Amino acid sequence: MGKKAVIFLAEGFEEIEAVTTIDVLRRAGVDVVIAGLGDDPVRGSRGIRVVRDVPVQAVRQEFDAYILPGGAAGAENLARSPEVTDLLRNAFRAGKIIAAICAAPAVVLSPLGLLSGKTATCFPGMEKDFPSSAVPGAGPVVIDGNLITSRGPATALFFALKIAEELSGKEISDKVRRATLADTL
Amino acid sequence: MGKKAVIFLAEGFEEIEAVTTIDVLRRAGVDVVIAGLGDDPVRGSRGIRVVRDVPVQAVRQEFDAYILPGGAAGAENLARSPEVTDLLRNAFRAGKIIAAICAAPAVVLSPLGLLSGKTATCFPGMEKDFPSSAVPGAGPVVIDGNLITSRGPATALFFALKIAEELSGKEISDKVRRATLADTL
Repeated sequence: MGKKAVIFLAEGFEEIEAVTTIDVLRRAGVDVVIAGLGDDPVRGSRGIRVVRDVPVQAVRQEFDAYILPGGAAGAENLARSPEVTDLLRNAFRAGKIIAAICAAPAVVLSPLGLLSGKTATCFPGMEKDFPSSAVPGAGPVVIDGNLITSRGPATALFFALKIAEELSGKEISDKVRRATLADTL
Repeated sequence: MGKKAVIFLAEGFEEIEAVTTIDVLRRAGVDVVIAGLGDDPVRGSRGIRVVRDVPVQAVRQEFDAYILPGGAAGAENLARSPEVTDLLRNAFRAGKIIAAICAAPAVVLSPLGLLSGKTATCFPGMEKDFPSSAVPGAGPVVIDGNLITSRGPATALFFALKIAEELSGKEISDKVRRATLADTL
């Protein structure tokens, strides 16, 4: 059975981070739902407009992974959404994968208390908004239990491949790594 | 004066390659127009739907760079478009930048004769469709005169930064390299 993931896009989302993650996970056979906040299409931080699959209000607590792209304004919009924060709190409690990149770990997860006692990373410099009990992790992608965090646009491919590995297994993830030429970097 | 680039999206375009290039060039201050072929929004190879800025019929010969993402089906759709091929032929003759990645060099540029005698790259294996006078270049991004070519999703960021360097200069391109964390790879 293929796994299911939801990615939340709000106005100002970072396009490379969002699109790379959706693309890679779909290559890995994950059923990815693009949940949009606000107007449809959703406008990214560099003006690219992506059409949502569903509005955030239609998202149920049925996913194996909950994914947050960065983009400062996009992450702030996610943090202000009661639908997103409720889904994240419940998913975290249920041990589902929470994956966040760039501004999202500091701006969305930290205020929800989901980084307390965790090792995590984010866009360089934003660790200042981590709780004191969080440990800033080294490397482009950091995994601690059900929490996967990453740094920014250039690390999005590795972030996505790590989520793919968790959801679809290492064999499929490695196949996507080769098909995208990520193995050549 | 900022430079202007056009990127052509047809159904089946590779989303990472297209979106990374648009995002990076806009970060570098390039005025990027997303020209869509066929239905709007344009559906990529992994089902992501991107809204065009203009239909391809509205594109004039006024750009400093003409950019082609890959995706096998997307590149074939570009190769079949008289609007796209006319624009490319004229732009090439006028010495404008032609930038193509993944399937696009072999599927779009090669049949137009734009690779003859040129050093170029593409998705590994597709060099078999290059003309015999073309030289397969090494590395993730190959530049030969006004032609910039690259290999696939994982090299898109470096492809985009090279186009940014040509259009906006090395200082701005390096700034974007740091802002996207591409300097950390």
